[in-house]
Amino acid sequence: MTRVEVMKLRVYFGECDPAGIVFFPNFIRWFDASSRHYFDRCGVPSWHATEKTHGIIGTPVLEINTRFLKSATYGEELEIHTSVVEWHRKVFVHRHVAFRGEEMLAEAEEKRLFVRRDETGHIRAVMVPEDFKAMCV
Amino acid sequence: MTRVEVMKLRVYFGECDPAGIVFFPNFIRWFDASSRHYFDRCGVPSWHATEKTHGIIGTPVLEINTRFLKSATYGEELEIHTSVVEWHRKVFVHRHVAFRGEEMLAEAEEKRLFVRRDETGHIRAVMVPEDFKAMCV
Amino acid sequence: MTRVEVMKLRVYFGECDPAGIVFFPNFIRWFDASSRHYFDRCGVPSWHATEKTHGIIGTPVLEINTRFLKSATYGEELEIHTSVVEWHRKVFVHRHVAFRGEEMLAEAEEKRLFVRRDETGHIRAVMVPEDFKAMCV
Amino acid sequence: MTRVEVMKLRVYFGECDPAGIVFFPNFIRWFDASSRHYFDRCGVPSWHATEKTHGIIGTPVLEINTRFLKSATYGEELEIHTSVVEWHRKVFVHRHVAFRGEEMLAEAEEKRLFVRRDETGHIRAVMVPEDFKAMCV
Repeated sequence: MTRVEVMKLRVYFGECDPAGIVFFPNFIRWFDASSRHYFDRCGVPSWHATEKTHGIIGTPVLEINTRFLKSATYGEELEIHTSVVEWHRKVFVHRHVAFRGEEMLAEAEEKRLFVRRDETGHIRAVMVPEDFKAMCV
Repeated sequence: MTRVEVMKLRVYFGECDPAGIVFFPNFIRWFDASSRHYFDRCGVPSWHATEKTHGIIGTPVLEINTRFLKSATYGEELEIHTSVVEWHRKVFVHRHVAFRGEEMLAEAEEKRLFVRRDETGHIRAVMVPEDFKAMCV
Repeated sequence: MTRVEVMKLRVYFGECDPAGIVFFPNFIRWFDASSRHYFDRCGVPSWHATEKTHGIIGTPVLEINTRFLKSATYGEELEIHTSVVEWHRKVFVHRHVAFRGEEMLAEAEEKRLFVRRDETGHIRAVMVPEDFKAMCV
Repeated sequence: MTRVEVMKLRVYFGECDPAGIVFFPNFIRWFDASSRHYFDRCGVPSWHATEKTHGIIGTPVLEINTRFLKSATYGEELEIHTSVVEWHRKVFVHRHVAFRGEEMLAEAEEKRLFVRRDETGHIRAVMVPEDFKAMCV
C-alpha cells in the first residue's frame, strides 16, 4: 500500500478569481504545500534542518501534469491527498488529488528531485537520500 | 467583551521569501481571510448568498495599518485573532493579531465597509446591515 | 505560421522562495496572464465585455502539463511566448514558453475552453466562438 | 526634490477577486516590488550581491499604513511611484502611490530597515549603509 497523507485547507475569498471560482494556479500552490506536508508527516526534517545535515535545500519540480475536473469556491473545505508513487535514483513522482468531500476536483502527477547548493552557489541534483526514502513508507 | 474569532493556519514553504521568512504581504492576505472567517463564525452568509438577499458583494478595505514585530517561517502554526472593534454607520474597524503560540508577530487595524454593485455595475457603499451587525456579538 | 504573442515581466523578490529561486507556481500564474495578454493582442475584448456580448466569462483550464528546465531569480527580465497550437470545436490548446534571453526556462501545454454562466449560475462550456478564433491568426 | 522611481505593471486576471477588482493585498505586493525596483534604479546591488559585500539580505517592513481610494481591474496599466521620504539611523520611510493615469488608487507609507543574518542565523538590524543612502538622491 502506498502511504497517503492528507492536507486540509479552506479556500479563501482572495484565492478566487472574477469568475468566482478558485484561480487554478492555487491548486498547484496547494499541491506544493502538500508535498512538504507529506514529508513533515513522514518525519523528514524541514529544509532548514536538512541543509545543515545533508546539504539539501528542497525538492524542485521538474514536471507537473495537472487535470482540473470541477471548480471550487471560497469557504469550501478541501483535502489534498498526496503520495509518492515512484522512487527512482534521483527523481521521485508525487501524485496529488484535491477532493471536496467525495468529489475529485483536480489531480496532478509531479516529478521532483532533491537538490543541494554547491560551493559556487549553484543548485545541484543529488541521489534520493536513503534515510528520507525509508521514512516514507 | 468584544467577540474574537481565531483562524488557524500553517505557513507554506512558498509563502516565504529568499530571506527564509514569511513574505509580509501574506500576513495581509491572512488578515483578509480571517475577516471572512470571522463573519462565517458569526453566521453572516457568504457573499454569494448576500448578493441575492442584500445586494452585498463584500467588504472592501478603505485603510489598513499594520505593524510587524517578529518574523515567521514555513511549517509554523499561526493563529489570526480577529474582532470588530468599532461599528459606525457605514464603516467598521477590524483588529487582527497574528500569534505563534503566545508571541505576537503582527497586528493590523483595518477600516472596511459593505458594498453592493448598482445597476450600472459600479460598486457603492451601503449602511452597515443591522442584521449582520446583530450577529457579531 | 502560428501567431505568437510575447508578454514581458520582471521577477519580483516576493515571487522567489527560500531557495532564492522563483516559486514554480508563479510560472503557471504568468502563463495564465499571458493567455489573457494573447487574447488582448488579438483583439478579443475583456471578459467583462464578452459577458455582455457572448455570455462568456473566461477560459478555464482543463489540463496543463508543464516542464521546468532552469530556475530564475528576482530582478531578471523574462518573456512568456504564447500561441494557440490547436483549435477544436470546444477545446483549444495553448503553448507557453518562458525565456530569459535565449534560454528556455519552462514550457507548458494547456487545454482550455470558453465558458458562460447559465441562468442557474452554473458554468457551462460553449463552442469556440468563430469571431474570436478568426481574430487569433 | 525627492527622487521618485516609477514601476509600471499590468493587472492580471488572477490578481482580481470575485468582486472583479484587484484583491487589495496585491497592491502591497506591488509596493514591495516597487521598493526593490527603486533600489535597482538607484544602483543598489541585488540582495544576493549585498549579502556578500555588506552581509545585507534585504529590507524587512516594520510598519505599513495603506489607504485605498479607487479600485482597479485586470488589463489596466498601473504605475507605482516610490520614493524614500525619510532616512533615519536605522529606519527609512518609503512612500508608494499607485496611479492609473492621473487617478490615485492607493497610497502607503512604509517603515523599513536594512538587516543582515548573524552567525547564529538570526536576522539583525544594521545602520543604514551610507553608500546605499548616497545612491538614492
